[in-house]
Amino acid sequence: MMGQNIERKIIGILRVLSGAGEPIGANLIARQLRHLGIVLDGRTVRYHLKIMDEQGLTKKEGREGRLITPKGLSELEDALVSDRVGLIITQIESLSYQVTFNPWKKEGKVILNTSLIKKDKFKEALSIIKRVLKSRIGMSILVICRQEGERIGDLVIPKGEIGLGTVCSITINGILLKEGIPVEAKLGGIVQVSDFVPQRFTELVTYGGSTLDPLEIFMQSNMTSVLNAVGAGSGKILANLREIPAVALDKAEVILEGLKQIGLAGTVIVGRPGQPVLEVSPGLDRVGIVVLGGLNPLAAVEESGIKTESKAISTLVNFSELRPIEEIK
Amino acid sequence: MMGQNIERKIIGILRVLSGAGEPIGANLIARQLRHLGIVLDGRTVRYHLKIMDEQGLTKKEGREGRLITPKGLSELEDALVSDRVGLIITQIESLSYQVTFNPWKKEGKVILNTSLIKKDKFKEALSIIKRVLKSRIGMSILVICRQEGERIGDLVIPKGEIGLGTVCSITINGILLKEGIPVEAKLGGIVQVSDFVPQRFTELVTYGGSTLDPLEIFMQSNMTSVLNAVGAGSGKILANLREIPAVALDKAEVILEGLKQIGLAGTVIVGRPGQPVLEVSPGLDRVGIVVLGGLNPLAAVEESGIKTESKAISTLVNFSELRPIEEIK
Repeated sequence: MMGQNIERKIIGILRVLSGAGEPIGANLIARQLRHLGIVLDGRTVRYHLKIMDEQGLTKKEGREGRLITPKGLSELEDALVSDRVGLIITQIESLSYQVTFNPWKKEGKVILNTSLIKKDKFKEALSIIKRVLKSRIGMSILVICRQEGERIGDLVIPKGEIGLGTVCSITINGILLKEGIPVEAKLGGIVQVSDFVPQRFTELVTYGGSTLDPLEIFMQSNMTSVLNAVGAGSGKILANLREIPAVALDKAEVILEGLKQIGLAGTVIVGRPGQPVLEVSPGLDRVGIVVLGGLNPLAAVEESGIKTESKAISTLVNFSELRPIEEIK
Repeated sequence: MMGQNIERKIIGILRVLSGAGEPIGANLIARQLRHLGIVLDGRTVRYHLKIMDEQGLTKKEGREGRLITPKGLSELEDALVSDRVGLIITQIESLSYQVTFNPWKKEGKVILNTSLIKKDKFKEALSIIKRVLKSRIGMSILVICRQEGERIGDLVIPKGEIGLGTVCSITINGILLKEGIPVEAKLGGIVQVSDFVPQRFTELVTYGGSTLDPLEIFMQSNMTSVLNAVGAGSGKILANLREIPAVALDKAEVILEGLKQIGLAGTVIVGRPGQPVLEVSPGLDRVGIVVLGGLNPLAAVEESGIKTESKAISTLVNFSELRPIEEIK
């Protein structure tokens, strides 16, 4: 009998192949598995595919492509009945665990949001992104930019597009966790900015109560006004909230200060034990920490009428691959 | 000192007036208060306005219009700091409590979703709505249709538009509650339909973890394919889930059967104690009940490229005001 966890991965791979309709490779499969809340790298997918080929569930097509077989399809149908819908908190905890970034050595893996932008719109988009990050309405001034055919983590940039990775604010959770601080991802939401200062959450969705990333929801529903927040100092921006035990506050503040100095944490708002942060109250003897969403610059790009294909909490890359936004041309 | 509850209402009214920028009346204020999670009828708002006039927070302008005064603005500013963001579950429980519909007498108030549709697009929209409701992908075949200047509950239909009210699936919660069954609104989501049968939730947001109505979120994010579900039998539709104690299951089934016979409950899927419904598991000794969203016909209208201004869980009307969709021309 297969372990339940392995079975879930295999069913996930079958579901991706069934949806693809054409032969696809391990890296693309790995990326699409994320949408199902399954986080695997390309190498691990290849390992599973080899076993699945032997079981007759999949077959090779071309150099690295795979197709689902009739046996695979029927296995998938049976399995779907018991496959549960996955909450986003599961994916957050899984990726947080995989963060290896060490703020003292300045090395290790961080979590990225990824965005695809059409080549002919990229210059315009880039100038907006620079403006937003200069106003510190984002998570980090460090980004990664890749051309068609190149990759960001396990995402291969398609033809005609440019890929941009921004540091995902969930990275902070992973870094605190690696330093031994238990972090609970609470919610993502819309924060009202007035006079250039974040004032209060006006809308929110909890990570434990949603299958979709809240910040993606608010971005897709056109509920932000990041450009106004940058220009006139009054608007609605993306942010998220995590909680830590009050006893870990001093240590967390030292770490966050370190992250600010290397450009890894833009605007971070740390509460006091038991006190509300941006009007959201933490639990007893707990501290709320608000970080502005890494997707804010991309929300601004969309507000200006340029479509992007943006995915929050998307992939892991090495810190050394990141560059300051000003260096991107 | 004002009671905290009254203060919240007064601050809500000030916030609506501050956002309006022009004199507005009690009914429009009442409607906009809903967005802040405050449910008041026009008459109650008028009562508060009278007191607020005396306190110098608001002043009359025209026949029934009100403006916020400088004193009101400063009061609002002070208050905003302590005003908490409201979860949608609070509004659901408040409106459920106000449902007075009695399934045996066929009278009393039900909850509506409201939609505004441009006059010149209404005929096309209506034919889509009829098609969807005929396929039983909705909550009820009973609707309310009103012309400009007329009203649906406390919503006044603006010039150039036609107002359509569809029965909100949360009405079921209110009816069960009135019959003494404790109902817990759990979540709204996207349900995959295959071969014309609802199969499983693929995305969900819990009512206790969001300030926005989940079905509005999924509609605004263009995640439905109701037209495909109606036409080809395969697509993604809106639905929500509530839970009741297993001991109340027999009584609930009798009530739901009664509702079906008077056209008030289209497709309802009732689970078994402790067993998953559309793959979402209820609590121990509890039963899940899935009702298809009253907004599905409107989601189909939006899919066809016609913009609507749709609001879930919007207002209360008397059952006697509803008409079968076929009678609407």
